[in-house]
Parts: sequence; C-alpha cells; structure tokens
Amino acid sequence: MAKIDVELIKQLRDRTGLGMMDCKKALIETGGDVEQAVDLLRKKGAAVAAKRSEKATSEGLVHAYIHPGNQVGVLLELNCETDFVARTEDVKNFAHDICLHIAAIKPLYLNPEDVDPKFLEHEKGIMKEQLAGAGKPEKMIDQIVEGKVKKLYSDICLMKQQFVKNDQMTIEEVLEELIGKTGENIKIRRFARFEIGA
Amino acid sequence: MAKIDVELIKQLRDRTGLGMMDCKKALIETGGDVEQAVDLLRKKGAAVAAKRSEKATSEGLVHAYIHPGNQVGVLLELNCETDFVARTEDVKNFAHDICLHIAAIKPLYLNPEDVDPKFLEHEKGIMKEQLAGAGKPEKMIDQIVEGKVKKLYSDICLMKQQFVKNDQMTIEEVLEELIGKTGENIKIRRFARFEIGA
Repeated sequence: MAKIDVELIKQLRDRTGLGMMDCKKALIETGGDVEQAVDLLRKKGAAVAAKRSEKATSEGLVHAYIHPGNQVGVLLELNCETDFVARTEDVKNFAHDICLHIAAIKPLYLNPEDVDPKFLEHEKGIMKEQLAGAGKPEKMIDQIVEGKVKKLYSDICLMKQQFVKNDQMTIEEVLEELIGKTGENIKIRRFARFEIGA
Repeated sequence: MAKIDVELIKQLRDRTGLGMMDCKKALIETGGDVEQAVDLLRKKGAAVAAKRSEKATSEGLVHAYIHPGNQVGVLLELNCETDFVARTEDVKNFAHDICLHIAAIKPLYLNPEDVDPKFLEHEKGIMKEQLAGAGKPEKMIDQIVEGKVKKLYSDICLMKQQFVKNDQMTIEEVLEELIGKTGENIKIRRFARFEIGA
C-alpha cells in the first residue's frame, strides 16, 4: 500500500466529511491528488457537496461604500497576515479611502495582468493606426505604443491609478506606505463597483 | 451621400463629443455602425477615450451589507423602471433581505444561464457515473440527471434558491411578489459576495 501523507488525508476529510479509511483509499487510487479524490468519491456515490475548491485562507477585511443616492456602490477585500492588523484604524481607513477612490475613478481592473487581452489588442491596433496615420516612422511605433499602453494601465488599473486624495502617489505607492507603517504584507485582493445604468 | 439616421449621429456625438459632420462622415463610412465609427474616428486620431460601450440606462439602487466582523460582504444592484419605486421602503427592504440571503447562503451565480458550462459538464459527468455505478438503466439516467441539475441550480443560483427568511418561497417568487406589490418590473441585475479566505 502506497504511503499517503496524513496531511492530505486530513484535507480530504475536511472537504468530504468522510472517514479516514475511505479518504486514504481514494488518495491511493489518485496518487495523492485531493481534487481527483473528491471526484472519485463522488462518482462512487459519496454525498459530497459540489463546491469550489478551498483556497488558502488568510486574514483581512471586507469593506463597502455606497455613495449617497444609492446609484454607485463599491465592495473591497483586503488581505493581510494577522487579524490584529486587519482591525487597526490605519487599515480600516485605507480600505475606506480605496473604496471612495474606486467609486470616483472607476477602475476596470485591479492589475495590468487582469486586463482583458482582447481589449488590449484592440486598443493597441487603434494606437498603431493612429501613429501610422500621423506619419510616425515604423521603427518608433512599437516604442510609442509601449508608452501608450502604460498610460492606458494608469487609466484603467486600480494599482496604477493616481490616488484620488493625493495625485502625487499611485494606489500601489499608498499601499506600500501602509505596508511600511504596519510592518505586515497587505494586498488588495479584489473589488467590485456597481453603478446603475453603467 | 447615403442617408444616416439622425439618432445614430446623435449617439456617436454623445460617445465622442465630436462635431455633427465628423460623426455623419464616419457613420457613412461604416454603414451606420456606431461602434465601428468610434474606432474609425479614434484611428484617425480623434481624442476619444477608450471606454466600455454604453448600456441602456435604467433606474435602481445599489445596496451593500457587511456582516459583523468584516469577514463577509455583499454588493447588490437592483434595477426598476422609476426612481420613485427605487426609493420605496419595500424595495429597500427587499435589497437588504437579498443581501443577507447572499451573505448566508452563498449563491455562486444569479441565474441558471450564468452557470459556467465547464463546471456544469463536470458535475453532469459525475452524476452519470454515480447513477451508472448504482445500476440505473441507461435510458433513465438522462432523466434523473435532468432532475439533479435542477437541484444543483437551486443550490447555487440565487434566483432558484429558497429564501433564507421564508423557505416556502424561492428568491424568484419573492421578487415576483414585490413586482406585484409595486406594479413595476424589478430585476436583480448582479451581485458580488466577498469572503476572507474563500
């Protein structure tokens, strides 16, 4: 019988609520793959609820802001290392400021990596035609487009935007300042911005 | 010169802020396609900001709920026909109840149509193997799977879930009741649910 790490058996038990031996057997069959073991147990008829795979937990806080008039609302999740830091006024104030910023400045994405590649290609195509139409030499165009893409990121990506309360800093820089102050890694994990009719 | 509807020219002006004649010319070139006309004008160098195409506006409200402890938050957008109805206590209370429901019951999607097709196929595959393993005749399996998919929708789709404050009704039915009461079409347009570590 292959050796299966006790930690994996524990994970599978937590996921499925089934007994140690069933979990161990399933893990042996799947070579230690927990996700596959969940599927295997379900195929065999175990009453395991379909659910999203668990992600690594962390501490943090969820904050919301509804702009007066109820036409714009923002939801924000911040992650940090300890619950203690999540409860500090510094972190709460930061969360609130970022929500106000998102309500006002309307970022579409968190980071440049999140930008829809199709949208990006479309925008780049337009930039290139603009530059070609303006008579720019071909060898310069790629370089200029690179600069324009950077500018686009600073328009639509939260982390690259200038902070609405201090346009000398990007959101990224405001966050770095907070990290320095609290001595703990802090991340903006996600945000949602809903606006009536938009 | 082809005839271009004045309404289209007005739309393009609203989008771009450019003059009537420029808009008309661009629309003639694109055979009346507003989106293409926007791209064309941008390629020619017009300073038109990249933005999402405008969607039909409507009235409504955005509501948020943060569960005590700040580990779970919900953002919800309701649409209705008039601002007057959006401001009624009935609609506000409904929005709040739906946020509480989402916080507690954790729907993954708004409607069955929104369920990720890959996820659905994966779940159906598991159901079929379960049933085959349990010795169900093949001709019955599709029918049973259909029933199980309905059950899955009522687990993960907000509109099909049993209302947390009255499990005799689905959210869909609670909404229909509100529509009857206000005499106005009301829609749940979208929601977001953030939870630390999930």
